[in-house]
This record gives sequence, C-alpha cells and structure tokens, in this order.
Amino acid sequence: MKRYGQVIRVKPERYEEYRRYHQEVWPEIIELGRQCNIRNQTIFHRDGLLFRYFEYTGDDYEADMARAAVDPKNQAWWEIMQPMQEPLESCVEGEWWASMEELVHTD
Amino acid sequence: MKRYGQVIRVKPERYEEYRRYHQEVWPEIIELGRQCNIRNQTIFHRDGLLFRYFEYTGDDYEADMARAAVDPKNQAWWEIMQPMQEPLESCVEGEWWASMEELVHTD
Repeated sequence: MKRYGQVIRVKPERYEEYRRYHQEVWPEIIELGRQCNIRNQTIFHRDGLLFRYFEYTGDDYEADMARAAVDPKNQAWWEIMQPMQEPLESCVEGEWWASMEELVHTD
Repeated sequence: MKRYGQVIRVKPERYEEYRRYHQEVWPEIIELGRQCNIRNQTIFHRDGLLFRYFEYTGDDYEADMARAAVDPKNQAWWEIMQPMQEPLESCVEGEWWASMEELVHTD
C-alpha cells in the first residue's frame, strides 16, 4: 500500500457548489475508485485549499489512473469539477491535483 | 475512529530543517502519539503547505490532546517546530494547525 497526498484550490465563489457535489458523489465515481484500487480516501477543505488523502492498494498506479482517466462517467465528473478548481502555480504538465511529498508517517 | 485533516505553513527558509527533523522524529513523540490514540498519521508537504492526516481511535479527543500538550518532551518538540511554522491567518485562538472540514470520504 502506498499513501498519497494531493492539494488543489477551489474557487471561493464555487466552494458551496463543490461541497454539495461531494455530499452526493455519483455512485459510479465511487465504484471506479474502488476498481482502480483507491482506498480510505478523504477530501478536506479549509480556506480555499482542498487536500486529498488516499491509499493505493494496487500494483500499477499509472495504469489504474490511466484507466480512470478514460472512463466516460469520470470524464463527465471532471468536466464539472475542474472549472471549480484552480491548480497550484507550481503544477507541471499533466498535473492537476498537485502531488505532495510525504515527510513523515507513524502507524 | 474519526479522521482529521489539518493544515499549516512552513517558512520556506526553514523547510529543509523541518524536513530533517521529521526524518528522525524523536521516539518519545511517536510513542506519545500512540498513547494518545493517534493512528495512521502522515504529514505531507508542497509549496510551503504542510498537510497532516491522522485517525483518532480513542473516545476523548480533547482529553488526549490536553495530555499531549502538557508532556515535557512534546513541549520541547513544539518549541523547535513552532518557529518554523506559520499558522493560517484564519486560525482561531488555541488553534495552531488549522482544522479542515471533511468534504467526502470513500472506503
């Protein structure tokens, strides 16, 4: 299992809408996450910052993420979410949620 | 079990030092976390933002945090860490790491 932390901004004027969508995430999106070996996933918010934590239990992260990226329902979801979000300035090409570095872990 | 997400800034000029301390966290600090029912804790970094995720397995969070706060070794640790950190402007009194709101969770 590998832990992931990611960060992105949510546009202040879209935050309430973003929150409502996440109170009723489409079942297909949740199911796709499971199929792609994402577990124990949580998204947190404060002051326009979104933090996403999850654990990846598969053995080919790139392949699973590529699979998620071409899923039509997931693309429809992203099409709604992305205009509400604002990636960090330091994001590199292909990054949307910015990968964070794990500094420390305790069990 | 309850999940917690917290955010704080690290001063850019202190980041390397902060990282080094967390590569060798004092054993007493790790042990104290366990005694205070903190599990699966990870601190992530990107662009001066620190994100802390953990799971609390006890039944009195306030009491456990109060116990941690008076621990001399923990106080010594905070005395080193806090000058490297910068709380969010929106923090209320008594807050250091800023509590985040859980928007969504999937297992």
